[in-house]
Amino acid sequence: MARRASSDSSDAAISQSPYVQRRLPFFDPLDEEQITRLEAQVDWLFENVGFAFRDDPEAIRIWADAGIKQKDGLIKADAQWVRALCAKAPSQFTQVARNPERSVIIGGRNQVFAPIYGAPFVRDLEGGRRYATFDDFQKLVKLAYMHPNLHHTGLVIAEPTDIPVSKRHLDMVYAHMVLNDKPHLGAITEKSRAQDSVDMAEILHGKAVMDENVVIMANVNTNSPLLVDRVVTEAIQVYSSRGQAMVVTPFILTGAMGPVSTAAAVAQAMAEAMICCAFAQLVRPGAPFVMGNFLSSMSLKSGAPTFGMPEPVMSNYAIGQLARRAGLPLRCGGSLTASKIEDAQAAYESADSMHSTMLAGSNFTLHAAGWLEGGLATGFEKLVMDADRLGSYQKVLDQGLDCSDDAFARDAYEEVPAGGHFLGCGHTMRNYQSAFYEAQLSDSENVESWEEGGAKDMRRRAYERWNRMLKDYQEPPIDIARKEALTAYVAKRKEELPDAWY
Amino acid sequence: MARRASSDSSDAAISQSPYVQRRLPFFDPLDEEQITRLEAQVDWLFENVGFAFRDDPEAIRIWADAGIKQKDGLIKADAQWVRALCAKAPSQFTQVARNPERSVIIGGRNQVFAPIYGAPFVRDLEGGRRYATFDDFQKLVKLAYMHPNLHHTGLVIAEPTDIPVSKRHLDMVYAHMVLNDKPHLGAITEKSRAQDSVDMAEILHGKAVMDENVVIMANVNTNSPLLVDRVVTEAIQVYSSRGQAMVVTPFILTGAMGPVSTAAAVAQAMAEAMICCAFAQLVRPGAPFVMGNFLSSMSLKSGAPTFGMPEPVMSNYAIGQLARRAGLPLRCGGSLTASKIEDAQAAYESADSMHSTMLAGSNFTLHAAGWLEGGLATGFEKLVMDADRLGSYQKVLDQGLDCSDDAFARDAYEEVPAGGHFLGCGHTMRNYQSAFYEAQLSDSENVESWEEGGAKDMRRRAYERWNRMLKDYQEPPIDIARKEALTAYVAKRKEELPDAWY
Repeated sequence: MARRASSDSSDAAISQSPYVQRRLPFFDPLDEEQITRLEAQVDWLFENVGFAFRDDPEAIRIWADAGIKQKDGLIKADAQWVRALCAKAPSQFTQVARNPERSVIIGGRNQVFAPIYGAPFVRDLEGGRRYATFDDFQKLVKLAYMHPNLHHTGLVIAEPTDIPVSKRHLDMVYAHMVLNDKPHLGAITEKSRAQDSVDMAEILHGKAVMDENVVIMANVNTNSPLLVDRVVTEAIQVYSSRGQAMVVTPFILTGAMGPVSTAAAVAQAMAEAMICCAFAQLVRPGAPFVMGNFLSSMSLKSGAPTFGMPEPVMSNYAIGQLARRAGLPLRCGGSLTASKIEDAQAAYESADSMHSTMLAGSNFTLHAAGWLEGGLATGFEKLVMDADRLGSYQKVLDQGLDCSDDAFARDAYEEVPAGGHFLGCGHTMRNYQSAFYEAQLSDSENVESWEEGGAKDMRRRAYERWNRMLKDYQEPPIDIARKEALTAYVAKRKEELPDAWY
Repeated sequence: MARRASSDSSDAAISQSPYVQRRLPFFDPLDEEQITRLEAQVDWLFENVGFAFRDDPEAIRIWADAGIKQKDGLIKADAQWVRALCAKAPSQFTQVARNPERSVIIGGRNQVFAPIYGAPFVRDLEGGRRYATFDDFQKLVKLAYMHPNLHHTGLVIAEPTDIPVSKRHLDMVYAHMVLNDKPHLGAITEKSRAQDSVDMAEILHGKAVMDENVVIMANVNTNSPLLVDRVVTEAIQVYSSRGQAMVVTPFILTGAMGPVSTAAAVAQAMAEAMICCAFAQLVRPGAPFVMGNFLSSMSLKSGAPTFGMPEPVMSNYAIGQLARRAGLPLRCGGSLTASKIEDAQAAYESADSMHSTMLAGSNFTLHAAGWLEGGLATGFEKLVMDADRLGSYQKVLDQGLDCSDDAFARDAYEEVPAGGHFLGCGHTMRNYQSAFYEAQLSDSENVESWEEGGAKDMRRRAYERWNRMLKDYQEPPIDIARKEALTAYVAKRKEELPDAWY
């Protein structure tokens, strides 16, 4: 079930293949001078500008133990030393899923697609826009689990706003562990919540497996510009010290949290991520680390972030090349849009954003499906619409251009005369079943057939698809003892924790 | 007016810049072995398979004069000889527009965007889908002329089906010449219609200018597989003999008009285009020629063509690299979709198709805007929606990543502390006006503002935009004597020609 040659033909499919194993070469648009200048800017930020590590005395102590003392509240460090620390992080690592067929390799030529993260709202065609609930959350986890083109289920696929913030992480992590057997993330918002996630992962996978493998990752944002708060440093201490993986992602609205030029914003993002990687290596040398990158452009009319525009497209291409030079796995991009609904704007912006993300070689792509409204809303239709397109990207990456003898079909030219057709020739009969990616939500029929079918637009077809998928959902098998232990852990922690809504 | 630093802020804008002058490096995903194998397949088609040149004895005579005799109705030729002939075609040339500020360079690092070609239907939000009329045609020419992100107006932006086929070309060419001052194409469907186009171009530009320059191009399809009919060879004889440019485009529905594998289809398309280029060089050595390429994939459900899928995306990347190796200007891709309406499917497919088209380095892109329903319908909304995105692609191509000293904004870091913001700093104030591409049809406001504005989707905004544009339309100035001569030419030819509807 996990490795299928063609795309899913039923809505109950789970995985096309566990992750992208890229054959297509990378797109490296920067020349040596551009790379050198970008890297020099990163080094200049390390040495001359510095980073504020705030609100976490333990972080300051870790830097001090390594010989780096704060000056004017800033951490500055020799660039070569920072780069040498980052070089301790592996260029790729495996995140083991509880179903081993779904384990992913993050880094190198491998690419992993995961859904949107962090939206407080959801939207669907019938229910409209509303605050997300845990019921929505569970449905979305099921859809991400079932969708053949998503390799990883992320974590906060929507904020379950009907659960107290103090307890939300327990229900979210539990849902990903039980409703799903693809890899996922843990919580980061507070140190004890990160610890709960790691403890639950140990229950699910067992101590021995966890000692030797990455079984959980976490994603956290710096406070750009150049500010690293305790949410980041505590998450690193919890996850990295246990040998688990961290994704640290500067979120830069270019012109606000970074300079207005793309080159400066890319360099700043890289510096912020690398200083956190260096910190993680101080916590535990060799700790798996993913360099995150999230740049958006800005509307001059309103100052609102814009997506799918040339500046973030170019930043994806640039950061991909820089990450490969640094030897660090990369998270960037996604199917991003500022549109409020699943209209053409949403699709144009998402496609340009994601096309550049995939070509750039993003190793771990959060927000690959489901993102609406600048990330404020998770769209049920958008989730399956974006994911439908991910299968196309995966084929481009996995296969590149097959130039084998059979691909040149010389025997077909003996059968087919000039002006003839290849529909029934031997080469076509041998190959047609795997020749084309069949998008599930694209309607390619003629206008008459489409009208007879109700003239449904892609939103309507997507609505029908995710509803069918949920009807077909089956919980993946799980070891009963471990499930009970997880249930007990969540119950115990919920008893210990007060309800808090912030 | 012709060279503006930023995108259009008014709907009366004409050109952002006359064409793309690409700074971004090309994406070359094929390795030497793949290229060598593809080129060997092309050569094998030249030497071992051959091409049927039919229904034009003059074409057979031209081949025979060059020493190539038909055998079993096929033209086969030594591959090195064909390649040497193709090498006589210029790797880039200028198409002079009647307004010299809008002349385009086709080939090399330059890229030109033109609208859809050949649809019998039009669609707009209020009028729905209908046979196109000359009134629609003129409106669409005006929109293509006015849109700042289209560099060229093509020709059959929709088929004016209310004009007899025998006279249609006269009204179409006249409209492009008079309503518009961007470069455009001439007719090809019959030899005398091609000649009318060339004669009208001579009236518009004058004999002296035409003797020394390309002032008109024509686009024609081979009858794939491997069949070149008189429509192609006669058009080449008319245009190439006058030193004007030809675009010859194999249209291959992979699996029908070519083998089911992308590599074979790409090689076949290249061979068909190159044999026509060689033929054009026999007609007139040095004749400007654009190697066309149009590959679509297929739905296994219905055999219908599909667009924006991984196979044509990959074919764009491959043919771009092959065309550069061959030293020939390339036409490929476009904003292609099988969707019937301007929904998310249309936008996803168009964006993936066009993103790969632009990165691939297509030098002349027909169908860059307005294509719906597999090319059967021109969408008024689709035209301005696609074109809005072309500005984003142009910025990526024109600018790449600016790594100048100013782009690194070091002074900004002296002004902005960690955790601060860059909105008001000197670097931002110096650069914000040119920092971001401002898409005209993307709504990036928050959901409340968007709802207050009527919760319009992109289609509705596009409808409003093209209607505003038409209200603002002004005919570009034209030499009265030449306009009168063109009018007289059209009247005379219409008198000579019978009404015919085929």
